Order: sequence, then C-alpha cells, then structure tokens
Amino acid sequence: MNATIIKNGVVLTPGKRAERKDIRITGKTIDQIASVIQPTREDSVVDASGKLVTPGFVNTHTHTGSTLLRGAGGGLPLQEWLRTVMWPAEATFTETTVRAASDLAMAEMIRSGTTMFMDMYHLDMLHLAERVTEVGMKAVLGRGMIALDGRWTERLEAAEELVKTIQSDKSGLLKAAVSPHALYTCPPDFIRKAGELAEKYDVIRHTHVSETAQEVQHHLSSHGVSPCRHLHELGFLTPKTVLAHAVHVTEEELLLLKENRSAVSHNPRSNLKLGSGVAPVRKMLKSGIPVGLGTDSAASNNRLSVLADMQTAALLHAGTEENSTAVQAEDWMSAAWNSGASMLGFPDSGRLEEGSAADVVLIRSDRLHMTPDIHERAADHLLFAAESADITDVWSNGKALMREGSLLTLDEEKVRAEAEAEWRKIAESNV
Amino acid sequence: MNATIIKNGVVLTPGKRAERKDIRITGKTIDQIASVIQPTREDSVVDASGKLVTPGFVNTHTHTGSTLLRGAGGGLPLQEWLRTVMWPAEATFTETTVRAASDLAMAEMIRSGTTMFMDMYHLDMLHLAERVTEVGMKAVLGRGMIALDGRWTERLEAAEELVKTIQSDKSGLLKAAVSPHALYTCPPDFIRKAGELAEKYDVIRHTHVSETAQEVQHHLSSHGVSPCRHLHELGFLTPKTVLAHAVHVTEEELLLLKENRSAVSHNPRSNLKLGSGVAPVRKMLKSGIPVGLGTDSAASNNRLSVLADMQTAALLHAGTEENSTAVQAEDWMSAAWNSGASMLGFPDSGRLEEGSAADVVLIRSDRLHMTPDIHERAADHLLFAAESADITDVWSNGKALMREGSLLTLDEEKVRAEAEAEWRKIAESNV
Ligand SMILES: [Zn+2]
Ligand SMILES: [Zn+2]
Repeated sequence: MNATIIKNGVVLTPGKRAERKDIRITGKTIDQIASVIQPTREDSVVDASGKLVTPGFVNTHTHTGSTLLRGAGGGLPLQEWLRTVMWPAEATFTETTVRAASDLAMAEMIRSGTTMFMDMYHLDMLHLAERVTEVGMKAVLGRGMIALDGRWTERLEAAEELVKTIQSDKSGLLKAAVSPHALYTCPPDFIRKAGELAEKYDVIRHTHVSETAQEVQHHLSSHGVSPCRHLHELGFLTPKTVLAHAVHVTEEELLLLKENRSAVSHNPRSNLKLGSGVAPVRKMLKSGIPVGLGTDSAASNNRLSVLADMQTAALLHAGTEENSTAVQAEDWMSAAWNSGASMLGFPDSGRLEEGSAADVVLIRSDRLHMTPDIHERAADHLLFAAESADITDVWSNGKALMREGSLLTLDEEKVRAEAEAEWRKIAESNV
Repeated sequence: MNATIIKNGVVLTPGKRAERKDIRITGKTIDQIASVIQPTREDSVVDASGKLVTPGFVNTHTHTGSTLLRGAGGGLPLQEWLRTVMWPAEATFTETTVRAASDLAMAEMIRSGTTMFMDMYHLDMLHLAERVTEVGMKAVLGRGMIALDGRWTERLEAAEELVKTIQSDKSGLLKAAVSPHALYTCPPDFIRKAGELAEKYDVIRHTHVSETAQEVQHHLSSHGVSPCRHLHELGFLTPKTVLAHAVHVTEEELLLLKENRSAVSHNPRSNLKLGSGVAPVRKMLKSGIPVGLGTDSAASNNRLSVLADMQTAALLHAGTEENSTAVQAEDWMSAAWNSGASMLGFPDSGRLEEGSAADVVLIRSDRLHMTPDIHERAADHLLFAAESADITDVWSNGKALMREGSLLTLDEEKVRAEAEAEWRKIAESNV
C-alpha cells in the first residue's frame, strides 16, 4: 500500500515535547514516526517545513443542524434571543435547511482542523450519518430528544433507529449516542428510559446539564436535588456519559462525576457568549474527570473551531483563576485531542503515535504572529496565536480532507452558496 | 487630487447600523460616504463586495520592542517567567533587536487591521518615531521609565528629548507620551516630575496601574493609599492620562478616574494569560470612563491584534458578568476604534464619517465562519468570528499599508527573517 510521508514538521502530540519528526501514514494508520523517514518511489511526500503537525481536533459537543443561526440576534438577552430569534427560525427548518447547515458546519470544522465531532440534533440525523462518511470525518451522532409533549415512544424509537443504523455502518467513522436534550426538557423517567436505551446498545449517553445558574436553581426548587445527583439517581452517569457544560456544579456533583467516571464537554465560547458563566475546569481536571472541548452550536459561538475554544479556554481559566499555571498547556491539548477522542469512543485518535489513527493536521507557524518560530514555543504559539487560516492540511483516518488550503471532500463555494440560499428562504418565511 | 473609492462594502462604524455604502478617500481624509459614488476617470476603485469596511483598529497599550519574546517561557508562573526568561533576555537586547522587533510588531498590527498604537519602551524610541512615519502608521510614543536607581534626570531628559523630537515632526502621524513604567518601579516623586514634564508639553501621561492583586496589596502596605488615589495625589490623573490595566481597582478609584476624566487601556488577553484577573470594564463604561483596548506586549498575549483582544473582551465580560448584554457590541467597537483613538489624541480617527481621517480596513465576510453573511449580523461576525487572515486591505491617513493581502510599506519576508536572525543571536548569547 502506498504511504504518505509528512516530512520536516514540528510534531506536537499529548505528553511529548515538540520535536521535528517525519510521520508515515499507511492506510488509516500512522505506522511510523522517526527523525528521518526515507520515502520509497511509490510514496507521496508532503513537505511540512515551517509547520506544526498535530492530531485532528475533537469537538465534543455541537449542533450542526443550527449553523445557519450563526450570529442571529447577537446582543439580545438569552430568553429573548430564544423566544424571538432561535425558536421561530428553527420551527421553519426543513431537511434542506439542516443539510445545508451540516455541510457548512463540516466545511468550517475541517478548515479549522477538526476531524471528529459529537452532534446532537432533532432533525435529519440519518442523513447526517451518511453524509459524515461521504465527507470522511468521524462523528458520534445522537438524536436530540425533547420530551415535554408526552410522545416518548416516538422519540425513543427514532433515537433507536439512528443507533441501529450507525451500528450497522462499516466505515469505522461513526458511533452512536443517546441524547436526551436536558433535565429541563425531559421528565426524569424519560431520562431513565433514554439511559436504558443507551445501555442496551452500549453507546454514549449525552445531555446538557447545569449550563446556567437559573436552570440549576429551578431544578433544585422543582426536584429538591442537584442536576448531577438527579442524573446519577436516574442511572445516567456512567463511564460512557458525556455531559455538556456543567458550568454550575458543586464539589459534591464533581465527586459523583468522578466516581462514575463520566466526562464533561467544556464549551467555553458558548458559555461566555450566552452569559452562562465559567465552568470549574481546574477542579474537574484535578479530580481526574475527563474534559473535552465543544463548540456548541454556531448560534452561540459563533465559530465551529475547537482551536478557538481551546485558545479561549487557556486564556479564560488562567485569568479567572488568577493563576497562569492553573491549567497546563498539555491539559488543554489533551482536552482538544486525546481526552476528547477517548470520551467519544475513539481511543486511537487524538494522538500522533505509531499505531494510532491517521487524524493529522498541518498548521503554518512561519507567520508574523508566530515569529520567532522555534520548537520550544510551539505549544505557546498553538494555544495563544495560531488561527484557523494557518491550517493547511487535514487527514482523517488517513483520508485527505484538506490539502494546501483546499477542501477535497466538500465543494466550499457550493456549500456557502447553498447555506446563503437556505437562509434567505428562512428569512423570507419569517417576514 | 485623485481619490480612492471603496465600493459595495458593508460599513461598520461607531453608533451606526451596518449598511452597504461607498466611501471616497481623498488625500488623508474620507470626504464622501453615500449609497452610490460614481468614480471619475482618475479615481481608483476598490471593490469591497463581500467585505466589511471598518475604521482602523487602535492599540492603546503595547511594547513593540519586546515582540521577539512572544511565547517565551509560556506556562511558567509570572515571577519565575520574569526572572528566568524576560529579564535575562531583555538585558541582552541591542538596537538591532529592538528594530527587528518593532518592524515585526508593526507588520503584524497592520495585518490584523491596526493603524494606530501607543508604545511604551525604554530602548531606541527615537528611531521608532522615524520608522512609524516611514511605515505610515499613527503612534503615540513614550519612553518607558523605570527609576529605582536614582538616575532620574537622565531618564527625564531622555523622555523630554523624545517629546521634543515628536513635537517637531510634521507628518501628523505622531504624538508623544510621558510614560513612567509603574508605581512599583518609580518612586512617588518621580511620578510627580513625570507628570510635570507631560504638563509642560501638553502630552499624554501613560503608566501601568493595578495589574495584579499582589501589586495592589503591596502598594497599600507600603504607602497606605490605593494606587489610583496615589496617582491622583501625585497629579497624574488628568483628561490626557491613559492607565494600562486597572484590573484591581475599587469603586472609589473608579470615581477618581471618572472625576479626572482619565482613560483606561483594557488589555484582556495579557491580563488573562498572565493570570492577573478580569478588569471591571462594565463598571468603567457605566461610569463614563473612556476604555480602549491594548494588546500589551507579544510576550504576554501572544498576538498584537486588537481584533483578537476585542473578541476576547466581548466573550470574557459577557461570561464573567453572567450577562450576555453586560457590555454591548457597540461599546466594544468604540473601545477598539473611536474611544481608543480619542484617548490617544486623534479624535478624527476611529470612525468612518465624512471629514474623518482615512484609517480604513476591509475584512472579508464571505467566509465559511461568517456564513450566512448578512448585514444584520455584521457586528456579531466581527466580534465573534472574524480572524486576522480575513483582513485584506488597510489604509492609514489615506495611505495604503496593505492591499489585497500584501503589506506595502514593510517587506514581510524580510521582517520575518530579520526577527528570526535577531532572536537566534539572543538565544546564543543566553546559552
Ligand atoms: Zn448544546
Ligand atoms: Zn504593558
């Protein structure tokens, strides 16, 4: 089998110092990393001089279907934003809206170095499963379930159908999740049933929890128990559980997460933009709770760039903890790479090692904003200076998704045009 | 005089809704803004379709001379970082180091849409004054003064020489500041004398204040008075005073700033990265204190992009105030544009209006991460999605500094190469 050899780049991977190394990709796998790899005549060689070589970024929480709401109603208070902007628009969404939105989301994710994401949405997820494998990303997909209307069976059957479809897929790119939206949109018994469904198929449990102080307060007064303890009592906290947000959580709740080995998707840009607050990530990491990074939807970010969320997180927690070493650079890189990949069920992704999946990103460091461009500063440049335009090449499971700045599995101009056209339809129907 | 007409862009400027407009630049000035401007045969026409048109960004606090320390010692605690990385390196700086550093800084600032900056540094400022006018940016320059060694006269004379040189310059691009470094590096009587020097020449007073809690605590125990009150008692708070940081300030100190009509340079990325904390910007704005945005040095940012600092600020204060409308988008744009320019003594800059200085920036919005690209979302895209690579064109006082992604008054490759070479010299001398 012909190999691709990435030569002369500075390799950044969890737990190792930045070093100039060559990397060989054969099929879906990184099969060699060495100071110098001599290509054979059949191999293709990629020159990564002046570039960082990193694992693909992992987005542990997003909603690609709502990408067309990026920037809509910015500056409105949260409840007014939901009531006057988000909900009326989403009510008019059709299959074509969501497909345009998801393609746009995947295109932006690839451009910003993301190769894997976990998506929760209520529309058109069967199609998304197919589309992800065509595009060549990796994804964990769960049908978002809101269950206040009593139509539980319908919801759970649709969720189960998605799980079964994904489990019959042979691409190796997909995994399933069962994704009740939140404790405030799903009655407790529904959450329990959702957990049982996840148990039956041995898939990830995914939900939103404790995003705002108001939501927690409301839950406490309605149920007399903290949201995470409630999830625990409902059997929803397991080693295959990923909780989005967990901004307003007590020490006792963190202990429950730790004991159940449940993971958190930290979504700093969304939490900040919506005025939700700052999650206690230092404490989570200190307790050994796995932390990944999620963009949440473009409507509340506005980027779908894990790189941007990693950079925001690194600044945010140093500043709010008033301690520049509160969380180390390597913890942020783990969150963006291997911890995120592991909590999504892809433990061989998120690292550049012999035998790991070939999810690889090249990032130009020969830029004004990363000068001087020296190995010792590579991690600092990545965490505090690089931007998505510096990303030139992306492979997922050995397949090239972007080369020299051009997307290969999505037609960028078409994706943009369709997204604009779909948004015009929505806007007109809302006039 | 031939004019430049920027056509079909979406104009964002303080206090106005985003609208598609044409803009005519004649000489150093914007002399017409209208729905459609017909060019004459002599005019050059710039097509800004798919772009935002904004004022030049204003960096109210930086130290361009230390740009080569970008990313050095990242992850070390502050005091260890200063002792083991910053100070030993700075001690070896020569004129050529500082010149390479300042050129690198100006190149990055122009690339990220900044046309004006206030610089405080202790080396080679006379040369910088000349260089700024060659490059075509606008700058307020003050010689950074640390006065713990008793050589006050020498310091003040050097500062005065810079002020006089700048005041004799006829370019209209320069203004002077008197810049004692901080209360903890300058004795009180020196601060008073520095203020008197500024008074004599009617120039800006600029200093660091209350950056960390520790510094404030130390000042209180040594002097029995809060830093801002102390500055007030020393005659340093005036309508021409710009205070960098002001992170740890009391309500009483904010009142003093307000009463004296002194301004603050908010430097969010530097404050976060160094673990200094979060300045009370909402309160400052509510009191009517003018707030600008500064990058501080690349050593603690690592960018020199006001756009990046504006975006960080917008997220940070919504999140830490737990209120998405705590500070409005227009306040951040004012900080980055007209408030910043006014506090630096250029009240005609920082806005796109007929009669204002032609400091103009074009930003592509036809990008995946700003799709859908519609006028109503222009401010949200700018605050939460745009990145410096989206900036294509920059004019300062009517002079083109960047066109279609290429710097015109600095040789980018040469700037990078010289910066790398100078850093290698420093690194070798420190081995
Ligand atoms: Zn979400
Ligand atoms: Zn400073």
